[in-house]
Amino acid sequence: MSNIAFIGLGQMGKPMASNLIKKGHSLNVYDINKTAISEVQSLGAHSSISPKEAVKGCEFIITMLPNGKLVENVIFGKDGIIHSMDKNSLIIDMSTIHPLESDSLRNRLAEYNIEFMDAPVGRTSDNAIAGTLLILAGGTPSQIERSSPILLCMGSEIINAGGPGKGIRVKLINNFMSISLNALSAEAATLCEALELPLDIAIEVMKGTPAIKSHFTTTWANKVLQNDLTPAFMIELAHKDLGIATDVANQLHVPLSMGAAALEIYNQARAMGRGKQDWTAILEQARINSGLKK
Amino acid sequence: MSNIAFIGLGQMGKPMASNLIKKGHSLNVYDINKTAISEVQSLGAHSSISPKEAVKGCEFIITMLPNGKLVENVIFGKDGIIHSMDKNSLIIDMSTIHPLESDSLRNRLAEYNIEFMDAPVGRTSDNAIAGTLLILAGGTPSQIERSSPILLCMGSEIINAGGPGKGIRVKLINNFMSISLNALSAEAATLCEALELPLDIAIEVMKGTPAIKSHFTTTWANKVLQNDLTPAFMIELAHKDLGIATDVANQLHVPLSMGAAALEIYNQARAMGRGKQDWTAILEQARINSGLKK
Amino acid sequence: MSNIAFIGLGQMGKPMASNLIKKGHSLNVYDINKTAISEVQSLGAHSSISPKEAVKGCEFIITMLPNGKLVENVIFGKDGIIHSMDKNSLIIDMSTIHPLESDSLRNRLAEYNIEFMDAPVGRTSDNAIAGTLLILAGGTPSQIERSSPILLCMGSEIINAGGPGKGIRVKLINNFMSISLNALSAEAATLCEALELPLDIAIEVMKGTPAIKSHFTTTWANKVLQNDLTPAFMIELAHKDLGIATDVANQLHVPLSMGAAALEIYNQARAMGRGKQDWTAILEQARINSGLKK
Amino acid sequence: MSNIAFIGLGQMGKPMASNLIKKGHSLNVYDINKTAISEVQSLGAHSSISPKEAVKGCEFIITMLPNGKLVENVIFGKDGIIHSMDKNSLIIDMSTIHPLESDSLRNRLAEYNIEFMDAPVGRTSDNAIAGTLLILAGGTPSQIERSSPILLCMGSEIINAGGPGKGIRVKLINNFMSISLNALSAEAATLCEALELPLDIAIEVMKGTPAIKSHFTTTWANKVLQNDLTPAFMIELAHKDLGIATDVANQLHVPLSMGAAALEIYNQARAMGRGKQDWTAILEQARINSGLKK
Repeated sequence: MSNIAFIGLGQMGKPMASNLIKKGHSLNVYDINKTAISEVQSLGAHSSISPKEAVKGCEFIITMLPNGKLVENVIFGKDGIIHSMDKNSLIIDMSTIHPLESDSLRNRLAEYNIEFMDAPVGRTSDNAIAGTLLILAGGTPSQIERSSPILLCMGSEIINAGGPGKGIRVKLINNFMSISLNALSAEAATLCEALELPLDIAIEVMKGTPAIKSHFTTTWANKVLQNDLTPAFMIELAHKDLGIATDVANQLHVPLSMGAAALEIYNQARAMGRGKQDWTAILEQARINSGLKK
Repeated sequence: MSNIAFIGLGQMGKPMASNLIKKGHSLNVYDINKTAISEVQSLGAHSSISPKEAVKGCEFIITMLPNGKLVENVIFGKDGIIHSMDKNSLIIDMSTIHPLESDSLRNRLAEYNIEFMDAPVGRTSDNAIAGTLLILAGGTPSQIERSSPILLCMGSEIINAGGPGKGIRVKLINNFMSISLNALSAEAATLCEALELPLDIAIEVMKGTPAIKSHFTTTWANKVLQNDLTPAFMIELAHKDLGIATDVANQLHVPLSMGAAALEIYNQARAMGRGKQDWTAILEQARINSGLKK
Repeated sequence: MSNIAFIGLGQMGKPMASNLIKKGHSLNVYDINKTAISEVQSLGAHSSISPKEAVKGCEFIITMLPNGKLVENVIFGKDGIIHSMDKNSLIIDMSTIHPLESDSLRNRLAEYNIEFMDAPVGRTSDNAIAGTLLILAGGTPSQIERSSPILLCMGSEIINAGGPGKGIRVKLINNFMSISLNALSAEAATLCEALELPLDIAIEVMKGTPAIKSHFTTTWANKVLQNDLTPAFMIELAHKDLGIATDVANQLHVPLSMGAAALEIYNQARAMGRGKQDWTAILEQARINSGLKK
Repeated sequence: MSNIAFIGLGQMGKPMASNLIKKGHSLNVYDINKTAISEVQSLGAHSSISPKEAVKGCEFIITMLPNGKLVENVIFGKDGIIHSMDKNSLIIDMSTIHPLESDSLRNRLAEYNIEFMDAPVGRTSDNAIAGTLLILAGGTPSQIERSSPILLCMGSEIINAGGPGKGIRVKLINNFMSISLNALSAEAATLCEALELPLDIAIEVMKGTPAIKSHFTTTWANKVLQNDLTPAFMIELAHKDLGIATDVANQLHVPLSMGAAALEIYNQARAMGRGKQDWTAILEQARINSGLKK
């Protein structure tokens, strides 16, 4: 069993800390919210008056905070952990913060020879309570090995994201995709309703297509990701069909700002001479537009 | 076995007509492309010099054309089928056209007491050849019953979309969603590359979340579609995370026009007082913005 | 004085026809709205029962209709003017229609050796009444010369847009710009209000900058339109400032969908290596994105 | 003549400092770039090794830095001015920074009873050299009175933006509008080129309309800003015309992401029942979407 400092007892942090205590670890906790501290104290945690105080004698330091500015302050601030922590202990930042801020913290700590890994979590607060979170671990192999017994007290699955900073990166990509997709789905469902088509019929059909099955694992796998752009479905036909959809939406007063942005993406792809390429070539276009491909 | 007129022998139409012939039906075919006609003629089809000519004595009339204007012309034009068709035959439009144009054709034909159903197809040209298309059938129950034996010569699965005009509607929704999703996926993958995160790791993670599993069948099913907006993931947190993603993208020179549009959708939802609601409440916001909900 | 057929007596057409009568021309009028006909009849116009009827014996045929489909029908429909018009008369379409539809009409009429010019109008219905419209004339020099005396009965200014089809084109560009600009201006004004800055102060400042003075006649004139992209204001600084604005807007709950789209345009320009170029180089980027420049 | 500390000798700061020296003021200067210091030193400025050093004995402290983080560091950092400045001196921040960061700095300084005003500049580096900048002054009346003689050494015009924080706000609004407008103008010009319409003809026409004359001072002044939404040009007609433009653009392969976003704004306005209102009512819609109007 280990001595662990846990900083940040919010909706996710509190049950995560509780699960560490239940598995037998000794916890020093800190939060600006005194009520949250009391609750985990009643489970056996030791209350601290500052991050600096909390980390004394701890082998692991876990931070679970709302943003990178707060993580920075907890580490480097006036009462920050840098002033009193054991230089051999491992900082595990489980917050969802800006990946470039996470990189910056890791690099600044490296100057002190202090190890820092990113391990944000997936799933919901219910999973935090049940100890079944998904842990997206970004660190060196030895950091991941060292932290795994601790992380598995809070989560049921660890994904090794491939190195330092990769955990927070994969969290970002997943959230970008799922949050944006939610809004795009709302546009489709609203157009469906305006067309007086029951959503469950549309869902039944889409279950058999990339609309629900995703492109990453279906159309892309055999085409653009294999550098094969011979058309299964041509960009110019995709552009035509999407143009019909946005036209219908305008006739029916359904605003589709994401659909409209998508149409212009296909429009540009046609202008770049991709009209006869497979629709997955949109990825190549996006890579060019961001300077990743010349 | 039936007498069938088949009009439109393109990339999809030709193999579809071929499959009807192979199953023993008698086909009159028409296309402006004489080469296409020759090919199916060699399989036993009867060539016609006009749509008007092709439909004589046929019980079923199938149209498979690039757009609604052409379907209209084939039906009502100078050499259109309206001038010679048996009033008891059934027109099956399998083209992907504008749903409001499809409605208009059906309504105009109803004035002549002529039946018209929409039955666009899903899947690819490979499936057209194999006779394994997905048929999205829009028609009355008796039309669907009557046409099913014919349709099953071309496809392996028929989905009854729920009534006249619903086939073309569900095709539109599916295409809107899958075509737009392709472009959104490209933004995510590009950001992933700019962050030097291997795409396969992101895919592995997203396979366990709505990012790949879709919202329609996961988050929505127990929340907004049940009128439950208590937060599993709050709109204001979704907005925050999406804001981090677009900020990173701007730092890394990755243009995300769909992601940027999505951010503004969440931004508006917060302004409308939905910050503490579940992220699936974006659907309710979209319904209000289109006047479907007051 | 001339014999003129005037077809389309709507909010704009009626006062335009009235002004022709007042200036002494002889008018045959047609509209599906009988009330509108009565009103101009009382001023001396001759009522017709169809476009075909109206054009008999007329030297000029003016159409002022809501869309291109209606113009097409008035010309080529069952009761269309093509069936009875004097082949030497000139059709002047003053409607705001799709420019490619206008081209198509002109080309089809050319097969009959019939002349067609586009002459949409600018300004408001008040100007239509006062006879002070702006006429955007698209036609050959001889058509413009021939029509000018007629057009000047309805408008106070004629701009020769440079040839057949150019009138309707310049109308389109003007409307695209002014209609989109209205929405962009609303985003700026809303952000202004959210920042508790009085709009009149912002307007006072913007009066001295391209924000109100326009780029076409200020920044562009000496830079990108002269092929000079040395920076007066660098794209990367413009991107930075716009990023601050969209960030503030997200903090204050002000949705800026056009501003967000603009940010991604600058973002792409940076990715394409234009960060140190003058901000007017955005035009060059747009030309590349549309395939106009390689 | 005054003792002034000037911190930040970049492209704008260096000529601004130079002009203060030329007008007879005594300057202590600081920048991390030693070359820049040397140049103004040769004009008579006193070099300092830190901000803290520079401000000693100065009545005015001017900061001209790239972002708010740097301004914060110059004020509150280890070698910041807060540690040595005369509490009666006035800080004038002429940088273009985030307005909420500017507010935060002003508020933090108020706790020390130190006065801080925002006075960002307009116009170009040529104007900085000539001393003809536009100064957007945000401060109390007494601060503006006190600083004006100093500011007028660098600029030819001061606009009193209406109070503390208003200078940086009006700069933000102006830059948002002019930077976004540049990108929108590029879309219009590209569509113009694709339509083979010379840009100078379009400019000639737009000079007479809000497309170049701006809405703020024309259409809005007599309509929405007077709470009059009776239509001079109806939203549904604006939507129709913009729809033609985006349709043409899609036919001609011209991507219009801002125009597409604008179309959806009008689309939503129609859905909200505003179709028959004046197009300037888009402002009211934007105010509702941001929660500023219920």
